[in-house]
Amino acid sequence: MSIDLDRIRAAHERIRSFIRRTPVLTSERLNDASGASLFFKGENFQKIGAFKARGATNAVFSLDDAIAQRGVATHSSGNHGTALARAAKLRGIPAHIVMPSNSAKVKIRAVQSYGAQVVFCEPTEEARESTCAEVIKKTDATLVHSFENEDVIAGQGTAAMELLEEAADLDVLMCPVGGGGLLAGTAIAAKSMQPEIKVIAVEPANADDAAQSFRAGRRIVTEKKFTIADGLRTNVGEPNFAIIQRYVDDIVTVSEEAIVSAMRTIWETMKIIVEPSAAVPYAAILERVIDVNGRRVGIILTGGNVDLDALPWNPTR
Amino acid sequence: MSIDLDRIRAAHERIRSFIRRTPVLTSERLNDASGASLFFKGENFQKIGAFKARGATNAVFSLDDAIAQRGVATHSSGNHGTALARAAKLRGIPAHIVMPSNSAKVKIRAVQSYGAQVVFCEPTEEARESTCAEVIKKTDATLVHSFENEDVIAGQGTAAMELLEEAADLDVLMCPVGGGGLLAGTAIAAKSMQPEIKVIAVEPANADDAAQSFRAGRRIVTEKKFTIADGLRTNVGEPNFAIIQRYVDDIVTVSEEAIVSAMRTIWETMKIIVEPSAAVPYAAILERVIDVNGRRVGIILTGGNVDLDALPWNPTR
Repeated sequence: MSIDLDRIRAAHERIRSFIRRTPVLTSERLNDASGASLFFKGENFQKIGAFKARGATNAVFSLDDAIAQRGVATHSSGNHGTALARAAKLRGIPAHIVMPSNSAKVKIRAVQSYGAQVVFCEPTEEARESTCAEVIKKTDATLVHSFENEDVIAGQGTAAMELLEEAADLDVLMCPVGGGGLLAGTAIAAKSMQPEIKVIAVEPANADDAAQSFRAGRRIVTEKKFTIADGLRTNVGEPNFAIIQRYVDDIVTVSEEAIVSAMRTIWETMKIIVEPSAAVPYAAILERVIDVNGRRVGIILTGGNVDLDALPWNPTR
Repeated sequence: MSIDLDRIRAAHERIRSFIRRTPVLTSERLNDASGASLFFKGENFQKIGAFKARGATNAVFSLDDAIAQRGVATHSSGNHGTALARAAKLRGIPAHIVMPSNSAKVKIRAVQSYGAQVVFCEPTEEARESTCAEVIKKTDATLVHSFENEDVIAGQGTAAMELLEEAADLDVLMCPVGGGGLLAGTAIAAKSMQPEIKVIAVEPANADDAAQSFRAGRRIVTEKKFTIADGLRTNVGEPNFAIIQRYVDDIVTVSEEAIVSAMRTIWETMKIIVEPSAAVPYAAILERVIDVNGRRVGIILTGGNVDLDALPWNPTR
């Protein structure tokens, strides 16, 4: 089974009553500053504050009843855990979320608020995976990986689908890339709906494994460095990379300074709260690593979950 | 001449191509938390980032040509100055904005970006008024006061008009009160469109001259204390108070803590940026100084111009 536009449309039908059809936002000032016509898909206004609600909901509601009753499990320090907990609650099934012991308290509380069971582990990739495997062995729950999962990818593709329905004839569609769930779904939706569109992914230079992989033509796993765009530290997944190779036109990178500057510009100009990862595509426009002059450009603003006590322009943190 | 719904409708016709029809926002989580159905009018998304664009634009475009050519003038440390500068630029006439010498640089730059002439004065009410009078004497410009002006009041009333067109059958309409321009326009629009509606104004306890005046039945001018809701430090104007006495049902006050908490809650939950003054009505719901349980409540979110380097929950500032 593979992922195509029909499957993304089916995902949309499946999840539409559980998610928000988020607004497409424009800004005259950012259009003037960039020379482009920008169309921002506001997934910061999505349920649980991020696009992740789409994929997790699609995965949970795609399960057969008998399998669903055994519950779902994942490991996540971020929005996917919350999204899976919420989707499981909506379906009335158990959810087990493996979280690193150093996860932000607000994220732990968010997961627990949906009645999911939180299982803590050491904050390493190995511990996360092994603990999650143990939980699954014990509970017989189904793993819903945050990006290496076809239903998750199809669900994430619904954001681009909605955007292209509302903002037709885009020349370019941009989104950030971490594990590649959003990018894979976005690229399939966009190229299927509008074959001439250019799909450009943007990645922090400090976490540029997808850009490296794209240039090399093979998946390269890199050491994780710090990036303020913490949602993008993950290495791109294998099934994701295969889709990216087929459908994505380019992957460019941006500096940490540009990410912070883009985030602040979006806050001040558009009066909306977006997380650092969401600002990464606009950072590429700010740094002029891609030329958008005179073009109609879609940008997926991935989410708006930030710690207001630790903003990146606050010099004391 | 007095202000009625026809005049507010005429104002709306006059300014509609120059302002944004701002969205009406809802939040399931804030509905659950409050027990009410809340409808937020997002004037933080208005041109210049605040509802003030409405009144200033109406005042500027209400002037006869011969008078308009001589220009407009005002004194303002905040959004009205920017709004008047923008409106004057749109009409192609001069604007003179008297600003206290200690005004935030970002506000000075905003006014200048519209080509207005900035005249600095000492940061006292007396200096502002006398400097503005001098400018008017010298230039023959027309004073457009930020709230003691019928065209400004009628313009501000268009926000409530739009809100009531979209969210029908509200039981309560809430807005903050400073000088009373927004409140006067809001109250006239609301009571004219829907006589049974309750109009409730909210004021910081640290700047409670309007609440005191309302109780006493006469305008009381108080010493200014500090409030984080800096847009509301002004004493209520005379013509404004006359309208308020006639149309407003109650004026309640809120603590500084509740304002900060309401602002943060709106940011985190709704993913939008609102200024402290805009959070004042929701603060009254948080502090339960008004009972909204089971009711449909409109709230005007007045603006979104904040200094991101000096957020009120940042303990170092």
